[in-house]
Amino acid sequence: MKIDLLLTDCHAATLSEGEGGYGVIEDAAVAAAEGRIVWIGPRADLPTVSARRTERLDGRWITPGLIDCHTHLIFGGDRAAEFEQRLGGATYEAIARAGGGILSSVRATRAASEAELFASAMERLEGLKATGVTTVEIKSGYGLDRDSELKMLRVARRIGREGGVRVRTTYLGLHATPPEHRANPEAYVDEAVEDILPAACAEGLVDAVDAYCEPIAFSPDQVSRLFDKARGLGLPVKLHADQLSDSGGAALAARYGALSADHIEYATQAGVAAMAQAGVVAVLLPGAFLMLRETRIPPIDALRRHGVRMAVATDCNPGTSPLASMTAAMNLACVQFRLTPQESLAAATREAAHALGLGADLGRLEVGLRADLAAWDIQNPAELAYWLGKPVLHARWLDGVRS
Amino acid sequence: MKIDLLLTDCHAATLSEGEGGYGVIEDAAVAAAEGRIVWIGPRADLPTVSARRTERLDGRWITPGLIDCHTHLIFGGDRAAEFEQRLGGATYEAIARAGGGILSSVRATRAASEAELFASAMERLEGLKATGVTTVEIKSGYGLDRDSELKMLRVARRIGREGGVRVRTTYLGLHATPPEHRANPEAYVDEAVEDILPAACAEGLVDAVDAYCEPIAFSPDQVSRLFDKARGLGLPVKLHADQLSDSGGAALAARYGALSADHIEYATQAGVAAMAQAGVVAVLLPGAFLMLRETRIPPIDALRRHGVRMAVATDCNPGTSPLASMTAAMNLACVQFRLTPQESLAAATREAAHALGLGADLGRLEVGLRADLAAWDIQNPAELAYWLGKPVLHARWLDGVRS
Ligand SMILES: [Zn+2]
Ligand SMILES: [Zn+2]
Repeated sequence: MKIDLLLTDCHAATLSEGEGGYGVIEDAAVAAAEGRIVWIGPRADLPTVSARRTERLDGRWITPGLIDCHTHLIFGGDRAAEFEQRLGGATYEAIARAGGGILSSVRATRAASEAELFASAMERLEGLKATGVTTVEIKSGYGLDRDSELKMLRVARRIGREGGVRVRTTYLGLHATPPEHRANPEAYVDEAVEDILPAACAEGLVDAVDAYCEPIAFSPDQVSRLFDKARGLGLPVKLHADQLSDSGGAALAARYGALSADHIEYATQAGVAAMAQAGVVAVLLPGAFLMLRETRIPPIDALRRHGVRMAVATDCNPGTSPLASMTAAMNLACVQFRLTPQESLAAATREAAHALGLGADLGRLEVGLRADLAAWDIQNPAELAYWLGKPVLHARWLDGVRS
Repeated sequence: MKIDLLLTDCHAATLSEGEGGYGVIEDAAVAAAEGRIVWIGPRADLPTVSARRTERLDGRWITPGLIDCHTHLIFGGDRAAEFEQRLGGATYEAIARAGGGILSSVRATRAASEAELFASAMERLEGLKATGVTTVEIKSGYGLDRDSELKMLRVARRIGREGGVRVRTTYLGLHATPPEHRANPEAYVDEAVEDILPAACAEGLVDAVDAYCEPIAFSPDQVSRLFDKARGLGLPVKLHADQLSDSGGAALAARYGALSADHIEYATQAGVAAMAQAGVVAVLLPGAFLMLRETRIPPIDALRRHGVRMAVATDCNPGTSPLASMTAAMNLACVQFRLTPQESLAAATREAAHALGLGADLGRLEVGLRADLAAWDIQNPAELAYWLGKPVLHARWLDGVRS
């Protein structure tokens, strides 16, 4: 067996399906070749192999590299000043009147060059990488016109080439109605569906299509038009669903066989049942829940009862979730939503891979899957969700290469 | 003027008293000699000087080094397994019956060597240092017998010598009643007051004295006995006060002229008024509030109205606040308690210095104060509290020396 990387003297949490719990292998060994895991098991069972590179991990734990499956990592400017104004007592209305809110991010994103967007996103990415992330999903949605949306998606692709992470791109044209279309939002939906999405897709910039379904954003009918188009282009869909109200988002996502329905604080029992039926992953976003001081938590018990996969992500964005730590997202999911540490680690690996349609390739430590790995300075995998802010990452490997 | 360190091409947030807000100096210069700030102002006003070392900061911001004024950084073991059990549905009672809770930390701390306690505390300290902390308060209180309390305090002193931070030690003997005194807590109070505190003080291990005043811990009468002793030994006091109930803790702290009253979710208006009168600093601990899912926030408006200084700290501890990031504490204070970003930065610098009795020496950028500094990759000081988990620290200096 030809081995590029051999890791020994470690414990593994494989997150394998059906193992229950973490899928622990004590005193494990992991071998990778050509970017994939070719052997994993108890070290005592390891056949004699010669490896180009062997690392002894001194009793550390290894897990699949973490997957942040919902981010708005790329944007111009930030909204720290608005954060300050809000805490100083300014109302959302007053801030919007003064040009704040999401449209201020749209203005700044349109004005920024690709180089500027790349540089600022890379700074935020450092927080994710420092907490073990090896795959990150990145949405467009602050451009809201053809050139600016394509610019965002090109920057996302560049991060995938140069950023030391695997990137999945998502076209989120129906994020907000741009100012130039305020009088006629339907015309913007036309443009997104008929012009921007096909153009982005033709350039190879789109791995999935997303929309924000909420009375303050887009209606189920508008979202359906976009999703029909996505289907025609052979692209999977996902949905910002039922975050602030029961808008039927979970059921809509299920109807389209979406990869995921995200947020879902207000999803109904029927919506959860439909998600289970259609295999839609629930993506929980505790950062936005915290920052918005929400009180209604997602229907976790119903999700468990129906066997819906639960993923957790940062939702990293300038307005409602300036969160750039994946382990912090895991901690918040436990503390606020009462996920167990085991659920939260599965949510950041195996289930997050499914939320991106990559369940066959990523998110578990199994022979044949990509050798995206994280090694941790912990004694117990529960520590990954237990600590908030303690640096516990030892190393990351992408395709079996330390990065 | 003899200069050891000159920082230029930066903006400064001085946090000077009476400046209001951040005390911003745009395009500033800071000079340090013999560990203290000897010049600060607009660079244009800088006289011609020769400096042994000059650093251009490329437009970054500098602030006073952050001060974490309330931690339980030293302890044996951790409580990640208990975190997991609780989220798996185990009650506090069941966990206590199984030997969990604070007494499990006491057992592990008693069993640990000084070297082990030092090593594990240093790992947690990395999180604080990575978020700009240059001074940390460290409490005893997991030993609860003479040898073990002194052991913890010796480890704290060692961190002060070798850990790259300034350390203030606090004797927290009245943290919990140790198991061997469960039948007679009063006998433990006797021991703490008459034996352990004097012994620790004689060894030069105690900078301040703290207690946990709560029906589930120690009564105001018991705390008073300890504080009378501290007064006799010339030691300042502070108090875990009114966290879970109105126990008169704020008023008790005021009666003893305490440096600070900490937590104070349930402090009354009268308690706040007494704190103001006595100059007691309010130390807010949003990490414990988050982890315990508390809903009653400290009386922030009353504290503002009465002009009580507000500090923020991590409360880093294994049971109720496994938080090892000072900027995360600042973010949580804004999000949960509605501090403004400016208040939260003052709370992590100037006001935290006062909570440790070091207001004349630390916590502001002013001539004569120690050159404990942090430089940040931000465009606006509000970003320090805005981001959760984004690495924004560029560098730290302790006594004018980069560390
Ligand atoms: Zn989102
Ligand atoms: Zn405490």
